[in-house]
Amino acid sequence: MLSVARRPLSAAVPAGNLLGIHLFKCPDTVGIVAKLSERIASRGGNIHSVDVFVPDDKHVFYSRSEFTYNPKLWPRDELHKDFLDLSHYFSAQRSTVRVPDLDPKYKISVLASKQDHCLFDLLYRWREGRLPVDINCVISNHDRSEDNHVRRFLQRHGIPYHYLPTTSGNKREQEILELIQDTDFVVLARYMQILSESFLQSYGKDIINIHHGLLPSFKGGHPSRQAFNAGVKLIGATSHFVTTELDAGPIIEQMVERVSHRDTLQSFVVKSENLEKQCLAEAIKSYCELRVLPYELKKTVVF
Amino acid sequence: MLSVARRPLSAAVPAGNLLGIHLFKCPDTVGIVAKLSERIASRGGNIHSVDVFVPDDKHVFYSRSEFTYNPKLWPRDELHKDFLDLSHYFSAQRSTVRVPDLDPKYKISVLASKQDHCLFDLLYRWREGRLPVDINCVISNHDRSEDNHVRRFLQRHGIPYHYLPTTSGNKREQEILELIQDTDFVVLARYMQILSESFLQSYGKDIINIHHGLLPSFKGGHPSRQAFNAGVKLIGATSHFVTTELDAGPIIEQMVERVSHRDTLQSFVVKSENLEKQCLAEAIKSYCELRVLPYELKKTVVF
Amino acid sequence: MLSVARRPLSAAVPAGNLLGIHLFKCPDTVGIVAKLSERIASRGGNIHSVDVFVPDDKHVFYSRSEFTYNPKLWPRDELHKDFLDLSHYFSAQRSTVRVPDLDPKYKISVLASKQDHCLFDLLYRWREGRLPVDINCVISNHDRSEDNHVRRFLQRHGIPYHYLPTTSGNKREQEILELIQDTDFVVLARYMQILSESFLQSYGKDIINIHHGLLPSFKGGHPSRQAFNAGVKLIGATSHFVTTELDAGPIIEQMVERVSHRDTLQSFVVKSENLEKQCLAEAIKSYCELRVLPYELKKTVVF
Amino acid sequence: MLSVARRPLSAAVPAGNLLGIHLFKCPDTVGIVAKLSERIASRGGNIHSVDVFVPDDKHVFYSRSEFTYNPKLWPRDELHKDFLDLSHYFSAQRSTVRVPDLDPKYKISVLASKQDHCLFDLLYRWREGRLPVDINCVISNHDRSEDNHVRRFLQRHGIPYHYLPTTSGNKREQEILELIQDTDFVVLARYMQILSESFLQSYGKDIINIHHGLLPSFKGGHPSRQAFNAGVKLIGATSHFVTTELDAGPIIEQMVERVSHRDTLQSFVVKSENLEKQCLAEAIKSYCELRVLPYELKKTVVF
Repeated sequence: MLSVARRPLSAAVPAGNLLGIHLFKCPDTVGIVAKLSERIASRGGNIHSVDVFVPDDKHVFYSRSEFTYNPKLWPRDELHKDFLDLSHYFSAQRSTVRVPDLDPKYKISVLASKQDHCLFDLLYRWREGRLPVDINCVISNHDRSEDNHVRRFLQRHGIPYHYLPTTSGNKREQEILELIQDTDFVVLARYMQILSESFLQSYGKDIINIHHGLLPSFKGGHPSRQAFNAGVKLIGATSHFVTTELDAGPIIEQMVERVSHRDTLQSFVVKSENLEKQCLAEAIKSYCELRVLPYELKKTVVF
Repeated sequence: MLSVARRPLSAAVPAGNLLGIHLFKCPDTVGIVAKLSERIASRGGNIHSVDVFVPDDKHVFYSRSEFTYNPKLWPRDELHKDFLDLSHYFSAQRSTVRVPDLDPKYKISVLASKQDHCLFDLLYRWREGRLPVDINCVISNHDRSEDNHVRRFLQRHGIPYHYLPTTSGNKREQEILELIQDTDFVVLARYMQILSESFLQSYGKDIINIHHGLLPSFKGGHPSRQAFNAGVKLIGATSHFVTTELDAGPIIEQMVERVSHRDTLQSFVVKSENLEKQCLAEAIKSYCELRVLPYELKKTVVF
Repeated sequence: MLSVARRPLSAAVPAGNLLGIHLFKCPDTVGIVAKLSERIASRGGNIHSVDVFVPDDKHVFYSRSEFTYNPKLWPRDELHKDFLDLSHYFSAQRSTVRVPDLDPKYKISVLASKQDHCLFDLLYRWREGRLPVDINCVISNHDRSEDNHVRRFLQRHGIPYHYLPTTSGNKREQEILELIQDTDFVVLARYMQILSESFLQSYGKDIINIHHGLLPSFKGGHPSRQAFNAGVKLIGATSHFVTTELDAGPIIEQMVERVSHRDTLQSFVVKSENLEKQCLAEAIKSYCELRVLPYELKKTVVF
Repeated sequence: MLSVARRPLSAAVPAGNLLGIHLFKCPDTVGIVAKLSERIASRGGNIHSVDVFVPDDKHVFYSRSEFTYNPKLWPRDELHKDFLDLSHYFSAQRSTVRVPDLDPKYKISVLASKQDHCLFDLLYRWREGRLPVDINCVISNHDRSEDNHVRRFLQRHGIPYHYLPTTSGNKREQEILELIQDTDFVVLARYMQILSESFLQSYGKDIINIHHGLLPSFKGGHPSRQAFNAGVKLIGATSHFVTTELDAGPIIEQMVERVSHRDTLQSFVVKSENLEKQCLAEAIKSYCELRVLPYELKKTVVF
């Protein structure tokens, strides 16, 4: 597999200090980083990394900064206000600041269908402390017996499980909307239903999907079979934002693995599942670390 | 990059012996490997590896064997006759035997257009002894001055260069056919012309193409631009056999590289060119080592 | 990480047939593969792959073959007898034949200390069916409470757990020997004790260890700290056979990961643990699939 | 191979602007990035990336910044003065600023012995414009005929070649010192001589060496043979700064490749040479892009 190597969150946080992350999008102008870092310094904080992206001829400025600061000298609400100021000052279209060790974790719901490898992998990583989210519920259109291993896991950890069977006439979107309304974003862990435009508009927040093919190849159903029949030598998985166009939202991560003539449709599926798990987890982790921003119609910045 | 790791040709050849390679395709039955290895042993030779592929329910048997033998005990023409016998015995659809250190190298022609990175890379590998072929000529539909580095290289090594400019009305296929008729196979090193069905039939031998996209995505023109606009996080290159359907022949190799929001269309092209060179060279090398067999309509066995 | 890509076990087994694996070591001579495959064919079986290794000037022949056969035509005990015949015929030093879907799984004991990441990873893979072994017991010199997750797992699956605290004066080797006497091989999953020569001789079978360093660098204690202090840019893990010389037995697998100035000793340990798990699991899997043979004093053949 | 993926130099430089790089080391305090970026902004420039490293409890601050600016508004000598000011202000131990498209390239000398793969690879990359250096001369203690391919290459490009044969009694260090005195740093491209302490002190600038082993394993002579005899499954190469202790200077880059029982000592060497070339080129490129700083006694920061 061809792995990603994002720079990890800064570990060099002085004792008594906290790490803050700031994601920013505004019209391009001179001195944005200077202003940001000056404000942070004026509160006794220190920039640890800044990553700027200014697309050619687009006059848009994107940045992501990590900084450390002393929470006694810079209380959370003042920090918030300071960044709000900066946001107004630069007419920002987006300004998010997070202090991972202080702020509540992102709250998510996970939607799944019959295939549970991505769902279970998320739960497992969550339990190991490697996915910085709170899971408010799992919603599935596939029934699972009480002693199914997903059900047992959820029960043991007090996460509600909602079985909402869908039909072509009833996608249960209203009930889903109610269950997910308090979340920060939603994850489709191989949820095999297309969400309607009105659902997407009503929810209004980000939805991250995992597609078991190397988009834009192999959209729609049975991508592993499509890839198998096409005689490819590489298969892949793609995590992306959900938009109204099927499997065409901005791509966050892609992963690939080699296949050969010896691989069967079944081993394509096994290899794909392994990719899907890692690709989805990586996308969620990046999202929670404020690395991901949609960009133009079909693109993402992933700092 | 996600590299391939083919098992290298056996290096453990006893002094005075030679390495032979045998590629075989026939209806599946019992005892094929036994018969092959018995014949080899009866001549004092030894099997070093056998790789068999029998697709599910297809009743076809593919194998590739490497063996060492003493050429004094088993002269080349008798070796040939022995494998021909076996071929008849098993009603083989394909039986090729090569002794790389004895047989003439495969003779190829290379067709190119303006972009010369693949062409020059092939020439460079050839000079370094890493591509076991003889190049009988280079044909290009793009003019190059006498002191162009490709021209200089070819001149220094006595390889003819033919400039055959193409128009929509005249693809120069007849002249190309004459130039390539003595070759064992043909390589399209970014030759930006579609070859006609009648050309393919007249030539009748294998043609290997490099496509600068991860097929079946991004067929046709400007695949790097297509990929750039699609916001992919991975770009790739594909070497494949040429068939009458554009960019849809059986895939031999695929290679990928990561891209990010920081990549420009230009850096997509640079990364792609690097992939194309490696992907094409790997395909040619595999082909010459008798590892590659088309399989079903769109697939290949690559031992 | 730089992953290994062993060819998977042949999946193309005709209905009603079984896959057999044969590992062989004997003095080199002409016609060994021919004889093996002829015997298999005479029973209606078919070779699927043969891999031969004849080290330069060593006059030793190693081979590993996969074949499929009909168990009704070739009962297990006759198959055994046939390969025993061949073994005598070629004066083999080693001849092992396995039919994974018929033969009992290899029985192992796992020894561990305080760090349980390798132990738990093995148990998890075993439960998922990805490690073809039976675990007869887990032995630890570190106490674990009744509701420790390893203990719970073992209890749920009926695997005995033995707590045998060691002191410098009492390594509990006699008790360990009794517990492991029925096993096929033993796995040290970060067991932080050196086993005595007499223990190794008494047990007499293979013991596989995982070392959290890239041997022969960083032998002995605290290899992560040693690597950290040496300012390396790559860390690794090594699985190897245990011999009387500390951390110097024949290497089976090695895996590496990048580190940078940003990594702390703690993140070295985290990355190392991830490598250790995969490196140990891969070694055990290869061993069970008859791919591994010690070779010369310090080397292994890993087909 | 496990490749490195340094973030490439920022390509998003507005028309008429230039990219500047600044490397900084000073005692840690509050507001360093703020001060740096404010100064850049005050000249109409913009920070594109900042990467800070503050080792635990070391009270040292390292940073590397990329910025773009208009050279008409900020002439090179004023830019220089501004950063000198900052350097004084923070009592910096190190402050280097480079404008790659304006400043002269780093001037280097390359020392080589008989093995010329690294030397030739450097020359080739240099000619392709992929190594941003000027080569003032090549020094070798191995004779090469006039029509050797290295000699021809150097002659064609007007780079002096000095043959300085060494004996155990005469290392020719005085003559070498004279030849390299105008360089910015020196590259040992498999120069098989140990440089004396007085030589290192006299030169006083950085010397980058390539070692054909995975340090700290396999120091000294014949590392490939050492690795071969140790039965490793991974071989590597290491580029590092030269210090008075043999093969023990701070490591800049390391690269690895898989080997197996099939590899011979000769194929170890071939694989190693491939690693050495890439590892050395990567180190030089990183150095020229101001990414590399020695850190503590045996470590490097490689931004």
